[in-house]
Amino acid sequence: MRSFVEVPSGSDFPIENLPYGIFSRIGHTNRRVGVAIGDRVLDVAMVCHLFRGEAIAGKQHVFHQETLNDFMALGKAAWRETRLNLQRLLSIDEPELRDNAPLRQQALIPITQVKMHLPARIGDYTDFYSSLDHATNVGVMFRGKDNALMPNWKHLPVGYHGRASSVVVSGTPIKRPLGQTRPDDGQPPVFGPSKLMDFELEMAFFIGPANKLGEPVPIGNAQDHIFGMVLMNDWSARDIQKWEYVPLGPFLAKNLGTTISPWIVTMEALEPFKTANYKQHPEPMPYLRHSDPFSFEINLEVSVKPPGGAEGVVCRSNFKHMYWTMKQQLAHHTITGCNMQPGDLLASGTISGPEESSFGSMLELSWRGSKTIDIGNGLTRKFLQDNDEVIIRGHCEKPGLRIGFGECKGVLLPASQT
Amino acid sequence: MRSFVEVPSGSDFPIENLPYGIFSRIGHTNRRVGVAIGDRVLDVAMVCHLFRGEAIAGKQHVFHQETLNDFMALGKAAWRETRLNLQRLLSIDEPELRDNAPLRQQALIPITQVKMHLPARIGDYTDFYSSLDHATNVGVMFRGKDNALMPNWKHLPVGYHGRASSVVVSGTPIKRPLGQTRPDDGQPPVFGPSKLMDFELEMAFFIGPANKLGEPVPIGNAQDHIFGMVLMNDWSARDIQKWEYVPLGPFLAKNLGTTISPWIVTMEALEPFKTANYKQHPEPMPYLRHSDPFSFEINLEVSVKPPGGAEGVVCRSNFKHMYWTMKQQLAHHTITGCNMQPGDLLASGTISGPEESSFGSMLELSWRGSKTIDIGNGLTRKFLQDNDEVIIRGHCEKPGLRIGFGECKGVLLPASQT
Repeated sequence: MRSFVEVPSGSDFPIENLPYGIFSRIGHTNRRVGVAIGDRVLDVAMVCHLFRGEAIAGKQHVFHQETLNDFMALGKAAWRETRLNLQRLLSIDEPELRDNAPLRQQALIPITQVKMHLPARIGDYTDFYSSLDHATNVGVMFRGKDNALMPNWKHLPVGYHGRASSVVVSGTPIKRPLGQTRPDDGQPPVFGPSKLMDFELEMAFFIGPANKLGEPVPIGNAQDHIFGMVLMNDWSARDIQKWEYVPLGPFLAKNLGTTISPWIVTMEALEPFKTANYKQHPEPMPYLRHSDPFSFEINLEVSVKPPGGAEGVVCRSNFKHMYWTMKQQLAHHTITGCNMQPGDLLASGTISGPEESSFGSMLELSWRGSKTIDIGNGLTRKFLQDNDEVIIRGHCEKPGLRIGFGECKGVLLPASQT
Repeated sequence: MRSFVEVPSGSDFPIENLPYGIFSRIGHTNRRVGVAIGDRVLDVAMVCHLFRGEAIAGKQHVFHQETLNDFMALGKAAWRETRLNLQRLLSIDEPELRDNAPLRQQALIPITQVKMHLPARIGDYTDFYSSLDHATNVGVMFRGKDNALMPNWKHLPVGYHGRASSVVVSGTPIKRPLGQTRPDDGQPPVFGPSKLMDFELEMAFFIGPANKLGEPVPIGNAQDHIFGMVLMNDWSARDIQKWEYVPLGPFLAKNLGTTISPWIVTMEALEPFKTANYKQHPEPMPYLRHSDPFSFEINLEVSVKPPGGAEGVVCRSNFKHMYWTMKQQLAHHTITGCNMQPGDLLASGTISGPEESSFGSMLELSWRGSKTIDIGNGLTRKFLQDNDEVIIRGHCEKPGLRIGFGECKGVLLPASQT
């Protein structure tokens, strides 16, 4: 497949990808549905009158919204048809858009001339804890080797409800939070800026069609509810977390901001990168059991860029390290009848691999601050410093095909004066 | 103050109350902003053209919405002015509405002819854990008397993010959830309907104006962000909770449904029932400190009604038993910069008092199932049975004035077939 739109070599956005996002033109405020191709953004509302097919017929109004929620709600048949229409219109062999110079000029905007926004109105955001290596690392640090993994961990995908309002799009600065910590267990807690700010390398998926309250999504249908994936940085204040999280879980340590990449890569685009699921022992209960592969080879890396300096990679991991699949996460989340809505966001939890270089947080990389992390140019960190930028990147690759996620980045600003 | 609308004695909704809700007329689908008075609902959109004053001028479109979010966003000056306008229009001394028979007939609808809906689009829902008696009871049961209260409990209002999508309005049936439990700690977990379904007697408040991400709400301004209060039943599956909640907190045990009462009683209406705050030791940190009273005398009771039977009161408690105030909860929630949005819901946690009869959950009333709870007519329970209805009521009272919340109720339906 080739497009008449130039796709530079190594681009994250070939015609096989076509991720969805919400953009505005610089200098304009109205938000529009876009698709990334090469170094351009296609304004979908401007070309959707050219779509063919029954699944999307009469429903093009979803491309005139300021979020992707309505498109997400349509479901798989409409998603597939839209993708085929976009690939057709962008194909080098199809004259309809290629030879319509005025439309092409209006509808294909240089990516440097747009500002990206949150792709959806996120009703609820859930964060799982589904990497065995991450859960084990954290367990060893806080509870010792013998009690590292909680007894429930291999029976169900542990997760918790997060804060939806503070999910922000890549590029939004995050402020170092104020809060209570107790640095010395024998002393009263103290107040001030968090001293142990961390990133968490995660990915997250968006929900498509809703299920009703009281009606679980069976694992056999789960993939019909999964629209696509983004990169995520679950910023974490480790010292606040340690003091607050027993017994009701992480709260303020996480709600200071959660960054996602702007382009949602669809499950169709990721299909060629499916790989065997993580081997699960004990066998999960029937409501969590599926034999088809639903794990994905996605190369992930995290860089830290000190103020004024060059970025240095601190972690290289892969989404395939996840123990629980997204289908299992969704089936578990809804087994009680919990209702999902289009645009809900479900995140993986920190994605650590077995090697030290693949640990997905500074907590693990510095082993709770007991050693330094090399960020290049002779600089080191244990946790983040003010004005450090964290950049997460991800892509899938095989000969002749690269499907990328772009960037998920944010600068950690200094705390407000207390 | 008296209204030309008849207010039966003992009514929750005198002219001094005027709680806000969203209703539709039976047989119609469009949702409208209403105010309860006696046995009537005033359709606010039909009378708001008669409002006077600068704060609400040009903003009456908020009363033509299908939720109260836009009205909540306006803030205190507009809330106060709207209340004064409504009290004026409903007053027995004011002819404007009283003597306009056609308008009166259209705008004042018998409460039996309306269906109530969720009053707001709830972006995020947070549940605190702010009753000392409840936290102590649960702590004693699960960790013994010596470790009952976690070391953080008296330093900060412990809370966690809940599931917003499954917050439903009073009257919505709740289905007994399926899920994993581990009845025997030495055996593997099992799957099936929860066997330990419980209610939690709570109240919750709605957020008015937003704060920006990164900008905490100082405790001195907190009350400007609090719109009003509702009753809440935080349905809980105790057996699911016990198996899942370590280390990230309650998740599926709670997201099966959370019921709120439909009428939001404003902080202005509750003003006469302010009472001294709970005495706090140790003194909270400065960001949580306020000396003005912001506790409220609100009588609360919970009844259980078996299928086909009469309801029996199982708990009588009071909102004044809360250790942390709503202002402290909001200041704490935002100290990291977490952004609140109009319509966000923050709940108290189970409101237990010091006496056994005031315990706000069956977990406490049956002391973890070790004794029976009398529900009247010779019937007993330890936890809820299928088709039991739980009804929460609340009101404030002093000579000549009763401000009530109406009802928060729901039936527990049997689980789906597995």
